Order: sequence, then C-alpha cells, then structure tokens
Amino acid sequence: MGRYNQQRNFLKSNFAEFKTIATDAKKGFPQPPKVKPCDSNSKLIDLPMVNENTLTNKNIYTCIKERRSTRFYSNRPISLEELSYLLWATQGITGMNKAGLTFRTVPCSGATHSFESYLLIRNVENIPQGVYRYLPMEHRLLFMFELDELEHKIDEITLDQPFVPNFANKAAVLFLWSTTPYRSEWKYDITAHKKILIDIGHVCQNLYLASESIDAGTCAIGIYDQALVDQMLGLDGEEEFVIYLAAVGKKP
Amino acid sequence: MGRYNQQRNFLKSNFAEFKTIATDAKKGFPQPPKVKPCDSNSKLIDLPMVNENTLTNKNIYTCIKERRSTRFYSNRPISLEELSYLLWATQGITGMNKAGLTFRTVPCSGATHSFESYLLIRNVENIPQGVYRYLPMEHRLLFMFELDELEHKIDEITLDQPFVPNFANKAAVLFLWSTTPYRSEWKYDITAHKKILIDIGHVCQNLYLASESIDAGTCAIGIYDQALVDQMLGLDGEEEFVIYLAAVGKKP
Repeated sequence: MGRYNQQRNFLKSNFAEFKTIATDAKKGFPQPPKVKPCDSNSKLIDLPMVNENTLTNKNIYTCIKERRSTRFYSNRPISLEELSYLLWATQGITGMNKAGLTFRTVPCSGATHSFESYLLIRNVENIPQGVYRYLPMEHRLLFMFELDELEHKIDEITLDQPFVPNFANKAAVLFLWSTTPYRSEWKYDITAHKKILIDIGHVCQNLYLASESIDAGTCAIGIYDQALVDQMLGLDGEEEFVIYLAAVGKKP
Repeated sequence: MGRYNQQRNFLKSNFAEFKTIATDAKKGFPQPPKVKPCDSNSKLIDLPMVNENTLTNKNIYTCIKERRSTRFYSNRPISLEELSYLLWATQGITGMNKAGLTFRTVPCSGATHSFESYLLIRNVENIPQGVYRYLPMEHRLLFMFELDELEHKIDEITLDQPFVPNFANKAAVLFLWSTTPYRSEWKYDITAHKKILIDIGHVCQNLYLASESIDAGTCAIGIYDQALVDQMLGLDGEEEFVIYLAAVGKKP
C-alpha cells in the first residue's frame, strides 16, 4: 500500500523530529494573536448568558446514546439562548491562566486554539439572516454581512453532494470552522497539523452532544469547496482557511 | 509561510481531486473487514451492560463546563461498569443498517470506523493488569498480554514529557487508539486521512465528557513514540498503527 505512504505518515507521531526543531516559539518570535482581531466599529450582538435551563434534555447518557447525524430538520427556529449555548459548548472560554492561555469547553494541544467559528444563520430567533463570527473572549456575535440567495449557499459550498444537509432541509445554522494554523505552528511547527485536525474533532463532537440536549440535530460536513467557502468568508486561504463544517437544526 | 505549504494543504478539502479518483470501492475491490478479527481461542471478558445508573453526574451542562485535562488522579479504581461505559461512549455500537454499516456513539465519515481501542489497564476492579483490546461488535474485552513494569510504560511511550499524566500520577487506564487506514482509504482514497484525524477527535471528546460523568478525568496525549507503541501492541506500523492516546483516572 505504498501509494498512501505520505498521507499515512501524516497520521503518525513525529516526536523525534519535533525534539530537534527550532520552533518559532523557541526562537523567541512573538506569539501570534490568540483570537482574530475585529474592527472597533464592528456591529456586535450580545449573546445571552449560557443558562442550564436552556437544555431540554440534560441527560448526558441519552445524549450520547441518541446522537445521530441528522440531515432533515423541522422549521422551528433555534433560539438565541440555544445558539449562545452551542457556541459556548464548542468554543466557549471557561477559564484563563496567568499567561493568558484560555481554557475552553474543548481540549486543544498547548491551548493554542487556532479556530474561529463562522455562522451562516438562516433561522435563529431575533437574528437577521446572514454571516456572523463568534467572539469567544467576549461571548458575542460579530455581524459580517448579508448573503444573497442564502437558501442555496450550503449546496454551493458542498457541491450538491447527497447526504449533506442543507437549508432546503431546513437547517437553521451552518457552522464553518476556520483554522489560523500559525497559532499552533508557532509552538509545534510541522507537528501542529495533525493536532489541529484532532482538535476540530473535539469541537464538533461537543456540537453533536449539545445539539442533542436542545432537541436539535447536527451533521458534520467534511467535503466542501475550499476556494469558494474561503472566498465567501473573506479568508486568504493560506493564513486562515475553513477546515470543517456542520449543519444544525431542530429535530423533525 | 511557504515552509508549511505541504502540511497546510493536508488540512484543506480536496473535493475536486476526489471527484476524479477511482477509489478501490469504485473499482469494485472488496471492502476490508469492518473490525479487526480475533482468534477463536482468545481470552474474552464480558463487559456489563451499559447502565445509566453508573453515572454519578448525568448533567451534560456541568460535564461540558467542568471538563479539563486532568493529569493527577486519586488511586480509587475504575469499576468494570465504568470501563464498560467509557468504551461504549467512545466506540460503542448503537445501531446497524442493512449493509452492515455500524452506527456508533461517535460520528465517522461514511461510517468507516477505522479505529481499534487498546487499553493498558492498571487499576480497574476485577480486571488483572495488562493490555486489552475492545471488541465493539460484542461489547467485550480481549485480553492480549501482561506487561512487565507496567508502572513505567506510559513514561516510555510518551518519552517522559512534562504535562503528560502517567501511572505514577495514578492513571487507572491508558486508552490507545489505532487506525487501520485502508478501511477509510478503500472508500475515500487520499481524502481519507484528514477525516481519520477529525474522527478520532470526536472519539476522544466523548471520553472527556463521559469521564466527567463518572467523577473521573482524562488527558489526551498527542505526542508519543510511534515505533515503540506500535511494537508494544504488535501492530505493523503501516496497515495499523496508533494515532492518539488518553489517560483516565478517578479525580483526586
């Protein structure tokens, strides 16, 4: 099976290499910003405090047991409280140490958290349709722009693949996670990239379980049009680019 | 930042390439076994039925909120019921379709589930110390072998890195997940490998949350001695190899 050697090697631990690498952190290069900055004149939306009472099923056992990738949804909206909870469950900050490293609801190698959460919102109460970014430090949404023909956007992004949910299936929100890989490369150099992929898996599993707890369903989407989605979000595709998507909607 | 081009490309979606690839599945090659076979004379241990009453904290909100990577443990053992629950939460089968695809407690691209779960057991009630493999189809443990100087094994595997928990820190169990990548390559060819890493992240996040619900803590371990751990488990390092580890123990 030599034809997959390069790809398989990427899955392996390259600890021996890492020990000999002069990472940018070791060289004393400045650490990149821990989150993406935003303009001071951005339109920000306060998210309600996360409240346990938002959950309709608090039982973790049944959330794990009943988790399935959900591709068809009811047209009931996600409430703002529920969206606040889903963002917190996936990237919310639960603590910070003296060095300014954030602890979040999901683990991340070296607390480097290279992700940004973008949202295509179709059906969330009290939030106009459009494209948003989550600001984890302040637990707010940043409004980015409206999107023409929103209904067709997921199909375009995912190239009309079967088994991929879309807004025609009444998904309420599409999560789009980007990575800014240098946040991790600064510390881990060429060993960063394996970790980044595992870490976004941690994030998405919390979205699955948290969705279950609010009578919603999720479906992760791993294949998408990279150039199209990066361009849509205004990402340069090199220093920041999308790595994983997930649709969410209320259960039928 | 051209020096990371190759690694960064690995993080991206290569949908366009995939559309033109004649995968082994499309060529009609036989699908590889969905789980690793075992000898008929293997020593098998029945795991207790997973029971919600095993959980001491069923509240998913507090499990998400209080999740932290836990590196020091109490010496209280994990019960067999608890181990059964952790294995189910990470790789347990919750359904099967007519084609024999398994649905599990974690999502996996194309339900290809390329993982096997190995355990280094130090402190689980009614289970002798040693190395085991989980059989998800029958929800049993397969005893593989005893291990001399078990107390030092995690340190060897993880090359004495700081911040990595070990048996001296009273970890009760070390989970070692392998991948058999051809299970996914058969269907996804060179697009398989990104998915495999994200999917093991899904698995590990369930271990984090399920551990919280039984008053235990987890710490994922991403850097390890690849050759040593593969050799220890008798894996060939090419068709099957370890991709991620996590220590578990009761909270102090």
